[in-house]
Amino acid sequence: MENLNLSEKDLTVSRLGDTRIDSPLGLSTHYGDLIANYIEENASVTLLQDRDEIIRCVKNKKFLAAFVQAGPRKKIFFDPKHTTAAIVTCGGLSPGINNVIRASVMELYYRYGVKAIWGIQYGFRGFNPTHGLEPKKLTPEIVKGIHELGGSFLGSSRGPQDIGEIVDRLEQMKVDMLFAIGGDGTLHGAEAIHREVMKRNLKIAIVGVPKTIDNDIAYVEKTFGLETAFSVAAEAIRSAHTEAIGAPNGIGIVKVMGRYSGFIAANAALALNEVNFVLVPEVPFDLEGPKGLFPHLKKRLQDKGHAVIIIAEGAGQELLQSDVMQRDKSGNLKLKDVGLFLKQAIAAYFKSIQMDVNLKYIDPSYLVRAVAANAHDAIYCVQLAQNAVHAGMAGFTGVVVGRWNNQFTLVPLKLAISERKFLNPEDPLWLTVIEATGQPFKMINE
Amino acid sequence: MENLNLSEKDLTVSRLGDTRIDSPLGLSTHYGDLIANYIEENASVTLLQDRDEIIRCVKNKKFLAAFVQAGPRKKIFFDPKHTTAAIVTCGGLSPGINNVIRASVMELYYRYGVKAIWGIQYGFRGFNPTHGLEPKKLTPEIVKGIHELGGSFLGSSRGPQDIGEIVDRLEQMKVDMLFAIGGDGTLHGAEAIHREVMKRNLKIAIVGVPKTIDNDIAYVEKTFGLETAFSVAAEAIRSAHTEAIGAPNGIGIVKVMGRYSGFIAANAALALNEVNFVLVPEVPFDLEGPKGLFPHLKKRLQDKGHAVIIIAEGAGQELLQSDVMQRDKSGNLKLKDVGLFLKQAIAAYFKSIQMDVNLKYIDPSYLVRAVAANAHDAIYCVQLAQNAVHAGMAGFTGVVVGRWNNQFTLVPLKLAISERKFLNPEDPLWLTVIEATGQPFKMINE
Amino acid sequence: MENLNLSEKDLTVSRLGDTRIDSPLGLSTHYGDLIANYIEENASVTLLQDRDEIIRCVKNKKFLAAFVQAGPRKKIFFDPKHTTAAIVTCGGLSPGINNVIRASVMELYYRYGVKAIWGIQYGFRGFNPTHGLEPKKLTPEIVKGIHELGGSFLGSSRGPQDIGEIVDRLEQMKVDMLFAIGGDGTLHGAEAIHREVMKRNLKIAIVGVPKTIDNDIAYVEKTFGLETAFSVAAEAIRSAHTEAIGAPNGIGIVKVMGRYSGFIAANAALALNEVNFVLVPEVPFDLEGPKGLFPHLKKRLQDKGHAVIIIAEGAGQELLQSDVMQRDKSGNLKLKDVGLFLKQAIAAYFKSIQMDVNLKYIDPSYLVRAVAANAHDAIYCVQLAQNAVHAGMAGFTGVVVGRWNNQFTLVPLKLAISERKFLNPEDPLWLTVIEATGQPFKMINE
Amino acid sequence: MENLNLSEKDLTVSRLGDTRIDSPLGLSTHYGDLIANYIEENASVTLLQDRDEIIRCVKNKKFLAAFVQAGPRKKIFFDPKHTTAAIVTCGGLSPGINNVIRASVMELYYRYGVKAIWGIQYGFRGFNPTHGLEPKKLTPEIVKGIHELGGSFLGSSRGPQDIGEIVDRLEQMKVDMLFAIGGDGTLHGAEAIHREVMKRNLKIAIVGVPKTIDNDIAYVEKTFGLETAFSVAAEAIRSAHTEAIGAPNGIGIVKVMGRYSGFIAANAALALNEVNFVLVPEVPFDLEGPKGLFPHLKKRLQDKGHAVIIIAEGAGQELLQSDVMQRDKSGNLKLKDVGLFLKQAIAAYFKSIQMDVNLKYIDPSYLVRAVAANAHDAIYCVQLAQNAVHAGMAGFTGVVVGRWNNQFTLVPLKLAISERKFLNPEDPLWLTVIEATGQPFKMINE
Repeated sequence: MENLNLSEKDLTVSRLGDTRIDSPLGLSTHYGDLIANYIEENASVTLLQDRDEIIRCVKNKKFLAAFVQAGPRKKIFFDPKHTTAAIVTCGGLSPGINNVIRASVMELYYRYGVKAIWGIQYGFRGFNPTHGLEPKKLTPEIVKGIHELGGSFLGSSRGPQDIGEIVDRLEQMKVDMLFAIGGDGTLHGAEAIHREVMKRNLKIAIVGVPKTIDNDIAYVEKTFGLETAFSVAAEAIRSAHTEAIGAPNGIGIVKVMGRYSGFIAANAALALNEVNFVLVPEVPFDLEGPKGLFPHLKKRLQDKGHAVIIIAEGAGQELLQSDVMQRDKSGNLKLKDVGLFLKQAIAAYFKSIQMDVNLKYIDPSYLVRAVAANAHDAIYCVQLAQNAVHAGMAGFTGVVVGRWNNQFTLVPLKLAISERKFLNPEDPLWLTVIEATGQPFKMINE
Repeated sequence: MENLNLSEKDLTVSRLGDTRIDSPLGLSTHYGDLIANYIEENASVTLLQDRDEIIRCVKNKKFLAAFVQAGPRKKIFFDPKHTTAAIVTCGGLSPGINNVIRASVMELYYRYGVKAIWGIQYGFRGFNPTHGLEPKKLTPEIVKGIHELGGSFLGSSRGPQDIGEIVDRLEQMKVDMLFAIGGDGTLHGAEAIHREVMKRNLKIAIVGVPKTIDNDIAYVEKTFGLETAFSVAAEAIRSAHTEAIGAPNGIGIVKVMGRYSGFIAANAALALNEVNFVLVPEVPFDLEGPKGLFPHLKKRLQDKGHAVIIIAEGAGQELLQSDVMQRDKSGNLKLKDVGLFLKQAIAAYFKSIQMDVNLKYIDPSYLVRAVAANAHDAIYCVQLAQNAVHAGMAGFTGVVVGRWNNQFTLVPLKLAISERKFLNPEDPLWLTVIEATGQPFKMINE
Repeated sequence: MENLNLSEKDLTVSRLGDTRIDSPLGLSTHYGDLIANYIEENASVTLLQDRDEIIRCVKNKKFLAAFVQAGPRKKIFFDPKHTTAAIVTCGGLSPGINNVIRASVMELYYRYGVKAIWGIQYGFRGFNPTHGLEPKKLTPEIVKGIHELGGSFLGSSRGPQDIGEIVDRLEQMKVDMLFAIGGDGTLHGAEAIHREVMKRNLKIAIVGVPKTIDNDIAYVEKTFGLETAFSVAAEAIRSAHTEAIGAPNGIGIVKVMGRYSGFIAANAALALNEVNFVLVPEVPFDLEGPKGLFPHLKKRLQDKGHAVIIIAEGAGQELLQSDVMQRDKSGNLKLKDVGLFLKQAIAAYFKSIQMDVNLKYIDPSYLVRAVAANAHDAIYCVQLAQNAVHAGMAGFTGVVVGRWNNQFTLVPLKLAISERKFLNPEDPLWLTVIEATGQPFKMINE
Repeated sequence: MENLNLSEKDLTVSRLGDTRIDSPLGLSTHYGDLIANYIEENASVTLLQDRDEIIRCVKNKKFLAAFVQAGPRKKIFFDPKHTTAAIVTCGGLSPGINNVIRASVMELYYRYGVKAIWGIQYGFRGFNPTHGLEPKKLTPEIVKGIHELGGSFLGSSRGPQDIGEIVDRLEQMKVDMLFAIGGDGTLHGAEAIHREVMKRNLKIAIVGVPKTIDNDIAYVEKTFGLETAFSVAAEAIRSAHTEAIGAPNGIGIVKVMGRYSGFIAANAALALNEVNFVLVPEVPFDLEGPKGLFPHLKKRLQDKGHAVIIIAEGAGQELLQSDVMQRDKSGNLKLKDVGLFLKQAIAAYFKSIQMDVNLKYIDPSYLVRAVAANAHDAIYCVQLAQNAVHAGMAGFTGVVVGRWNNQFTLVPLKLAISERKFLNPEDPLWLTVIEATGQPFKMINE
């Protein structure tokens, strides 16, 4: 669980060196002139929000944890005319990758005047010369239309690459700053690259942009793509509900992404408020027994004649492992797919109690992540990209651009990968889900 | 295959009796007054379109096959003030059911003045008193907003019911005309009801409205819901393509509905023209062998680095049955689901030739049919509903409202259920698919 | 009004000369082999559909009017290896232009093997060297993504250019076939180019693809873009209805395109069936007087508390001209914009009768035409483009690719521009509108 | 401008009395049991975020301003069984009103057990018996589908009503808590009602839910509907851009709502990043002169051949007043509509410098506010509604449910209406706009 009482060391961000160059952005340094100001060097975003806790902390002379605020600095580290940037996108697709690429290129090119920008193809793999993937030269002309497209204009890939080789290639390409757009694995990679760069005493800024549709990066309020993802997932809920009410004892099941976290499921359930049971990895549940899902589901059908369930792909993994089905040697796929498992288990349950139900299963799978960013994510991506460029130009390194309490922050890569973020069942979001669905807090036979 | 040289008997539609009542619609009987005319009793829509064929037919004194044209008649059979109508929706959901219900109610109520309209719940099952499903009284107030919703406002169900009991109930409810909205099974049911009604010498008009997302009703150009379905399926193709180009050797597979016919698959492939292989039930194909899908797919990846495949659920069933997988006792599900089968078979093939691919599978399932009708289908549903009401009021019975060459027609139920409609691989639609995708006409090792 | 008893001469299409080259498409010439056949040279699509009319015509030995059927010919005129094609788009934007461009390029390049394809920039203006608009070389790589975009990838422009100069330029560029995508004005231009080409005895095929969002090309069942347009317009109706019911005596007015024809308005009203009055250019109406719009509107408000009106931009022009407002010297804009005029006139009317109303006016203007083609139009555009290419390759010239009774046809340009197509108030479409809205056939004080 | 150093008095929220009743929600009071906790009575959300500022404030013993945190209380004021609630919606439509109504009813009915819930029709007007608008009884059954609809299920209206009469009616209806969903005017009304209720010493909780598409409620981070609004506005930008690039020297202008604030314009411009000039009420600009919009626009056309402008309806009002057009007596409308004014002024400018441009103007007007809430707003509305109900049940009164730093808060009505919120041109949002568009900070000739 994220710790809001971090130490100063946890929150300190690395810097490549002194910043001696005047920013070309032409911003202001005082209020009242209708021109935005450069961010002051010590501007910060406090983690705690409760007054009493804050006051207690200050009075007790404990460190009041705060992120460094992101944004444009008056003095920057790199001379735009002689700066080379590179952008790489890794891991699964997420709506908004192209928006980040485009806005980074635009900001570098037009605002800072950095004209040498390389797009690395197919993730970290593109650094590996054995794959023969030449970097693409990125210009405004080339990227101008890509924000309307889902996916990654640069291609993506999964899996680690040799860190030494990557840094070799960065040196060879004379890259001064690398923007790594990706999730947990990518940020781990970026952190390793950062360490290797430091070890070699190179002046290469490594800046991460957090991309995971599951929203599970710690100390980052929200990753881009999540909003688009649950918007699309909500449409699947609408269809599941329509099917459920369209047949006697109709049950609609929607499976969505969320390997370790239930953010997509929880948000989608609120976005289309026709869900009766939300099953997420963070909240264990039983199927059978007096407090399990099945009797609740049965009661719901008896009362209302239909029901809708949304399940995150990572939910109920403990059920899968202990299940009878495990004895089925060939059933590899079924065992891993909790959605299909749930569908079959529900069918078996109602068959066993001789109650006719109409079960409809929807797995929108890649539909939720391969679409173009919606308006909300599109804006967020522009903001992330601009702040990533500001960070890189100012010589920040080993950081990921984050967001906290609606402010953009710089989070040390090391901190961001120190744990995963989970949906806390005691946080307001899950309470809202409980109240909106009417499902019990616990469906566990204790 | 639909026969365009039908006999007069094939095309004759039944009538309940003489039409002695003046239509309350207030239309005209001559051109030039800016008021639409009643349809003349012998107005027809010729099946043949080629001039030479038509002339040959006429000169040889063969019957020139033509449907009875649908539309409002000057003289009607039922007295609106004393008429009771019933509407029933059966089978799987299809976008537009509610549009048909609403427009039927509006037309009956406001245009003809029929105020007694019953909605039968959950399909033919709703006629069976043992289920305790009371008919809903339908009024403009109740149905006014339902056209914006997917699904069926009345609920639907599958499976046959006792025909005698249904007609008993129609008699008991004093129903004068029954509108049965459904697909092949429903129209078979409607035809049986019609025969029983005739046998009992009742004056109940049985009018079908063809609903099947698969578009497989014979002698009916297009069923409602198809357009919406392939529009939604096209979005799945966009995502499959985005995923395919987003990873090295990416392959996107989309499975869509189409148990016996490939209309959704073919249209979706044209609607989002990023598909390389369209697999439909009407066109057999091999996977392996020099002319099979696999070598073509391999070549596509080698040439372009990505590929998109769309497969109708009914395609390649012959492969499933003869497949190795059949030997896998527990693999019941896999064997029946051609999409999962194809996904696994492709993965196995590329593994066998040691070629790394990134396979992404999308099965939008109910997403394509549970949505609300799009604009095109919404219009079509209003037209079908109005013509169904015109037909019923005029005493036509044992008919389904059809469409041929863009005209609305009355097709004898018997004819409509005499065969299924298939996508003819030699028709222009499939040629367009072949040319747009570049796939070979035949992927068969002969 | 379109004449369905055209003469043989009206329907004859020009040909550049003998077709001696084998088509590279590899189609079949007989049924039953699962491969589409080439279109036979005399294949046709009869205009009449009514059996009695057809038989009467044949028996009386009158010419049975029929269009030449479009589609691939076994023998073609141009040798693909030595053929140069050009594509030009003119007039206002319409959803689907890019789909036609892309599919034409794909068909020429991949199916026929024509590699020299030029895109003329900004309409006929692009032929005029004084504007310095160089033609773009079109390849599959360049056009591959444009079908997802609204607008015209080539740019468009309005207004005539010197025909002699255009043909000079075609000669100079060695263009063998010109595809002109446009509406009435464009097709007039294409016809003039065709005549000049014939006069100079050149072998250049001139093939039109009918594009007008207003759907007013004669002898062409439907132009591309219309479906998308009324789909978007339907969303404006939804908003107008929402506003109307959201306030006491709410009136929502939507103005849509349709300079001379009401197809968008009529279809949109059916697509979102919440409209009470549809005002189109083809049906004159009065505002005041006992039978005018105003008393009907007042009654509607009294009965239901809200009303929705959709008006085509070309409707009620006679009212504008005779109106009081004409006396207002500076009111140039208002007089021409029937939507604003109607809004003000309605406001004035209800003020005069001291009835409080809440008037909301929506003019979606370019929103309905600048969007990308929807699925329906996307398919239609692929079909039009392929048939245009088939026509050009086979040496047809002076033709526009049309559609009649759901078949693709070749319509002589001369015929297509001989008149405008209008929405016939006595046709089924308008009857459906009348019945769906409940508005009277006539709102004229006679 | 919002003051982040508010006094304790500014932030104190009223309470109807002691809370003696146990909440029926069944939440927890300690962490670790996977059950959400009741909000502690002194939980708060600090306004300041910068660590240094916070520490300075605490060390200087100044009041550290913080909002009361919203959420469920362990002890509540009203006994659900004997509680009557009323809901009223006022002012212009905004996406999400129905979501708030529905979620309030669901929360009251199912979670707290309040069964007596009235919906007041057509805003405060519905309290005035002379209009004969009977309150609607609200139940889950009645509101269950309304979240999918735009507009207000209860109807809305503008304008003040007699406060005394409203409170009379509340007393007469025995209303215990009133939820007033509305913007600035509504919250002024709610505050007046609250004062009158206090004066009469009644125990009626008055809880506001901030609704304004313009997002201009002070001390509330975001009002619902804004996200949906700029999402729709972004689509208008896409069309404007498509039109602009589709014609030589194309200029697309989009006018959006925003009477006093530019939030919709600024966000839409970022959401569809094809805008070159964003004109908002908060940033004055000149049209003419060396630093005005016109020369910048001209340069943009010379450089790129097209331009897109978005203007908020409240922008540039100073230009309208001083304009030549004011001399045009009859031109009332034009003078007030800055969009049409800008369109005409741009046309006149380019005519004066003899440069041909293609100007396309889009005013989506009610399209941006009459649509249903998108997923983001739908979630937000559920959260606002639940927190409003929690507040009312706990006896808070004279408050509006707010949001600050992503936490839900209770803001005294008096504070919320003490000023309007504006888009601060020196805040990060506007900086992002400046950087994304490339427009100068100032287009003023000083």
